[in-house]
Amino acid sequence: MASTKTGAQGGRRRPTVADVAREAGVSVATAGRALGDYGRVGDALRDQVRAAAARLGYSPNGVARSMRSGGTRTIGFVGVDISNPYFATAMRGICDVARKEGYEAILANSDDRLDIERAAVKVLLEKQIEGIVVAPNAVIDVGHLQRAQELGVPVVLLDRHSGVLDADSVVIDNEAAAREAVSHLLRLGHRRVGMLLCVDPSESPELVRRAGTGRLEVHGAARPSIDRIRGYVAAMDQYGAPTAAELIRYTVVGEAAHLEREAEALLDLPDAPTAVFAADNVATQGLFTAVRGRGLGIPDDISMVGFDDLDWTTLVDPPLTVVAQSPMDMGRIAAERLFARIKGDDSPGERIILPTELIVRSSAAGRDAVHTA
Amino acid sequence: MASTKTGAQGGRRRPTVADVAREAGVSVATAGRALGDYGRVGDALRDQVRAAAARLGYSPNGVARSMRSGGTRTIGFVGVDISNPYFATAMRGICDVARKEGYEAILANSDDRLDIERAAVKVLLEKQIEGIVVAPNAVIDVGHLQRAQELGVPVVLLDRHSGVLDADSVVIDNEAAAREAVSHLLRLGHRRVGMLLCVDPSESPELVRRAGTGRLEVHGAARPSIDRIRGYVAAMDQYGAPTAAELIRYTVVGEAAHLEREAEALLDLPDAPTAVFAADNVATQGLFTAVRGRGLGIPDDISMVGFDDLDWTTLVDPPLTVVAQSPMDMGRIAAERLFARIKGDDSPGERIILPTELIVRSSAAGRDAVHTA
Repeated sequence: MASTKTGAQGGRRRPTVADVAREAGVSVATAGRALGDYGRVGDALRDQVRAAAARLGYSPNGVARSMRSGGTRTIGFVGVDISNPYFATAMRGICDVARKEGYEAILANSDDRLDIERAAVKVLLEKQIEGIVVAPNAVIDVGHLQRAQELGVPVVLLDRHSGVLDADSVVIDNEAAAREAVSHLLRLGHRRVGMLLCVDPSESPELVRRAGTGRLEVHGAARPSIDRIRGYVAAMDQYGAPTAAELIRYTVVGEAAHLEREAEALLDLPDAPTAVFAADNVATQGLFTAVRGRGLGIPDDISMVGFDDLDWTTLVDPPLTVVAQSPMDMGRIAAERLFARIKGDDSPGERIILPTELIVRSSAAGRDAVHTA
Repeated sequence: MASTKTGAQGGRRRPTVADVAREAGVSVATAGRALGDYGRVGDALRDQVRAAAARLGYSPNGVARSMRSGGTRTIGFVGVDISNPYFATAMRGICDVARKEGYEAILANSDDRLDIERAAVKVLLEKQIEGIVVAPNAVIDVGHLQRAQELGVPVVLLDRHSGVLDADSVVIDNEAAAREAVSHLLRLGHRRVGMLLCVDPSESPELVRRAGTGRLEVHGAARPSIDRIRGYVAAMDQYGAPTAAELIRYTVVGEAAHLEREAEALLDLPDAPTAVFAADNVATQGLFTAVRGRGLGIPDDISMVGFDDLDWTTLVDPPLTVVAQSPMDMGRIAAERLFARIKGDDSPGERIILPTELIVRSSAAGRDAVHTA
């Protein structure tokens, strides 16, 4: 797990739990437990942490606050859609950690719409939840999340990073993951490689087009879909494969039925791609369905790499080569960060990058093999 | 949708919203809206309902209570496991209705364990949620749910009916659904038909065995798994196919990995079944995986019918014949019933039976076809 410091709270001089943890040579979670006097911490360790706190002049009030306040013991999760297995599994991870901490979780589905997300956060704050995990629709328009922080309600971002918000985020390296997937296809000899994905309605066709031609300057963080397009373009450039707007097909989130149509448009191109990277789990299903519907063989007629290691990708024939990530870990770690914050950790926001893995199965084959088949 | 009156609150003499609805000739939901003065009700309809209320001496205080009280506007859903698509989709239905009503939903996973369910309900009550949708672990041991009702917190059961609790339940006819699935296999000429399913840890092997031999007397309601076994036995009996304990294989919920082993045991019987009914979505996946692992062809070597129309069942080759139900509708309707109760409807609990459908695809073939293949 890589970890990058972001944000800029350097102006604060009051020592934090993280400072105490560093001074004592223990984890932030352990320091939080020792200072807050809850959970299991050995006596020696507790003394060690408290001595470090005394050296730094740390005041434990912040940590003990939520332990004593009898808060609502409720956190919120604003996900995109619980009926998407990615978010359902993340929710399971969040719930498991919450229960261990004696908390419960309220769920809100944003359908990746900023207006719904804003309203959900407002309602959660009215309900006095003690922290929010959110898969934010926008990476820049985060005023509603800043407001939560100002009210003392910690926010942890899941799946998406914001360059604006000083908050922990638990993400994957979308650009690198896409680059690896597309490089796999290119190394097999494919040059005409298509891409299929869901984008947010706020991502204008112009933005997607510019990302597709590599002429997109992104300041700070971008959304996963844009980062995946950048990874695709980077791989194509590296292998000298020409990119073209017609090769990148997308539909907006919530219009999954359209994906099949976009996939068909890709397959029907006069100079059709010999391989396609489906850059999210909805696109993976849409592509697989469209290829089957056209009566094409995988990988004999067309190679594909999908995204997300959902159960079904190993049940189909052939089993799919996919980029795997762990939404369960993502949910768990996001919740763990949230509880560290609830317990008083006010160190600058961290970007926690979880690993992805290209799982090679049988849906992508070499161009030579295709020609001789 | 069939609807059966259950429960026994006949002793109450105070007219209910249901009484008013009947008197006014409108639905309970419409009567609730008219009496509570919320939502869209035409003026004429409102007058009609209010006149009926006046005739019966109905006092609208109960209805108006939650509208005025500024309650927590939070409901709870105690499901088995949100990472199971069945419960994730039901949760989506619940959330959609809750949002429309201006409420949010807290999620708890019980892992089908009564102790966890009891603790979750206790916590939800402490949080002063206004109603609970629960997929109850036990159909008889429901003291914790009765306590919620006594505290004025309505309870709606999802997926499972209780013969003890006077509460609405939203279920399917599990016995009829299983009977239809197994009859389909028997009509194709199969006589040696196996069954694979998940059961609750509290369902002793003895109970399952007795259900399998048709010698299980169930007083009141049974759990879906037991009802599905009864449906299997009923079909086998009707077609004169001999049942045997060795043909019914199961594992307890939460040990899905064991299902594959049970499926393999079924396939390895000296007199192996020619067809298997997988009676839940976890069993369907376990059976499919085991059959593939054995290198057997579906339906040439073995026929199968699964349960739940999950996306993957149409992506695999061959697409699976399954018993389809709608967890989205189940969640929605359960939440709608819950809000009717929150708004004051105190008519006796209803059992709402949603339809199931046997979707015939290509995973089950006739015995003759098998022999000549």
